[in-house]
Amino acid sequence: MTGREEILHLLAKYNRYLLGCHLHPDGDAIGSLLALGLALETAGKEVAMVLPGGVPETFRFLEGTEKILPAPSLTPEVIIALDCADRERLLLPEAVFASGAPVVNIDHHLSNSMFGDFNYVFPEAGATGEIVYDLLAGGGFTLDKRIAEAIYTAVATDTGFFRYSNTSSRVLSLVAKLVAGYGISPSRIAEEVYEERSYDSLRLLGEVLSTLRLSADGKIAWMALSQQLMAAYSVPLEETENFVNYTISISGVEVGLFFKEITPGETKVSWRSRITVDVSRLAAHFGGGGHARAAGCTIKTPISQAIEQVLPFLRSYLAGAGLKNTAGDEKKRV
Amino acid sequence: MTGREEILHLLAKYNRYLLGCHLHPDGDAIGSLLALGLALETAGKEVAMVLPGGVPETFRFLEGTEKILPAPSLTPEVIIALDCADRERLLLPEAVFASGAPVVNIDHHLSNSMFGDFNYVFPEAGATGEIVYDLLAGGGFTLDKRIAEAIYTAVATDTGFFRYSNTSSRVLSLVAKLVAGYGISPSRIAEEVYEERSYDSLRLLGEVLSTLRLSADGKIAWMALSQQLMAAYSVPLEETENFVNYTISISGVEVGLFFKEITPGETKVSWRSRITVDVSRLAAHFGGGGHARAAGCTIKTPISQAIEQVLPFLRSYLAGAGLKNTAGDEKKRV
Repeated sequence: MTGREEILHLLAKYNRYLLGCHLHPDGDAIGSLLALGLALETAGKEVAMVLPGGVPETFRFLEGTEKILPAPSLTPEVIIALDCADRERLLLPEAVFASGAPVVNIDHHLSNSMFGDFNYVFPEAGATGEIVYDLLAGGGFTLDKRIAEAIYTAVATDTGFFRYSNTSSRVLSLVAKLVAGYGISPSRIAEEVYEERSYDSLRLLGEVLSTLRLSADGKIAWMALSQQLMAAYSVPLEETENFVNYTISISGVEVGLFFKEITPGETKVSWRSRITVDVSRLAAHFGGGGHARAAGCTIKTPISQAIEQVLPFLRSYLAGAGLKNTAGDEKKRV
Repeated sequence: MTGREEILHLLAKYNRYLLGCHLHPDGDAIGSLLALGLALETAGKEVAMVLPGGVPETFRFLEGTEKILPAPSLTPEVIIALDCADRERLLLPEAVFASGAPVVNIDHHLSNSMFGDFNYVFPEAGATGEIVYDLLAGGGFTLDKRIAEAIYTAVATDTGFFRYSNTSSRVLSLVAKLVAGYGISPSRIAEEVYEERSYDSLRLLGEVLSTLRLSADGKIAWMALSQQLMAAYSVPLEETENFVNYTISISGVEVGLFFKEITPGETKVSWRSRITVDVSRLAAHFGGGGHARAAGCTIKTPISQAIEQVLPFLRSYLAGAGLKNTAGDEKKRV
């Protein structure tokens, strides 16, 4: 891995930087991109912050996001990938790599493929925003309120607003420093990125919760969103992303599932687990994937059939895992 | 108001302390009670921590809560009220006051009635737990992991896990210090107090969300939980406390209300506001109180009549506040 001094040297030496982040950018991706981009710009560099799909609505409240463009506006001397675990997920047009500019990979994903010419990857960091802050502070960059808000947003969103296990004392000290030093408002950021929902999405949530079911042993909870319901409410699919978390909020539940009939005859399944079960392996059985605690797959059947496929599979997996406690063997057995 | 030195003197001078907190104790009430009680005990004092109704299930994970008793086990030299805005809400048997022991009132509610013989009230504190920490640190008390977890829980719950406007840099520095110094786990506490729900409470949430209504101008959202629904689900009232937050999660909503028919003919109203409206003043109109962003009142009518009383009052308040922008005048006018 590349050392901090070498990265800081790269950030000092060149003049033209192109910054990108991962597909479906979240708060950490956009916050990190923005914080580093604005700091480099303040330092007198030419910077292109690029998001081909534009900035998601949720994060447009961040000052400076209006500088993020759909396509590169310069030929870079350095390409910087932020919060991006592999080259395939990097949201930059292929053409930019033709320049031969070195790629700097700044990230905190454990699964990072080290695809950069320079890799600056710390899985122990709560967020890529934490790594960016450390670089900016270490490099003597001038920070301002815009940059502080971007870093706060990166860290707060990636730690689930300080509720996930990556909420370290380092993370908490950092956000305390940002609030004290730059007068940013935690509640405003929380309101912007966290709490806004639509009336329809809440009513739809009510309908979905009424489909909540629990297995006899209380270890599996699932809910369903049929095409019928989706048609009745004008709620974008993204706004239902978090619904699945209700399933694993139930005491005793180990695996939670949310079935969404995204088209007639096509059902998306979101998997969540709390402590022991690696749901990425279970979703993989149906051609999907993800993380140990959160995964997804799409099954090309109507919702009732998808439920009929997944539940018995999961039940027998859990029964087997309970006996043998070896997830790998179980997977083959099923 | 009493100075810190005087409070610390009271905590040093006597031997027998009786600690109580407010009715329907929340994380701040219990965390503050527990932190101060354990610290006094460690300092060699006789301490009775009292909660007549017992410790709510949610907070029993906190080590030391097993020492909290339903009735006083000693005749106190000092009575300490924690996180309690007025004497009526103090959860202690009347008999304890006969001893003539001085009452120390440690709180952060703006509406505190200063009912103590000694009042140590800081509305600018994010939580009473923050005030207790400051006293313990200032008084040279020995802290430990149990006390750190109690204070973390107090502060985290009262700031809505660092999402409400009382999330100051002071609050964030404090929790960073607690995590660094005592090895407590933010994610574990979050899971314990925040994420565990029962299957029934989620199904009830689904039912309550189906009652969600929005005013024509989109500024007021309300939901209702009738006696009928309460009877159909065996969900303790405390587990419905957070439901009200859904109302103000809707984009554009300024005031959210949740009506709970706690007995036939008696309706509890929870008030929430987002930015400008001081709902403690509105709840006070109905004999209740609380904070600017979160307040409550109880109306002695069935739920439908309570809704008929509150909504027109709130509508005309918002209309008036919009015209005059002086909440005080408006309150008198209505």
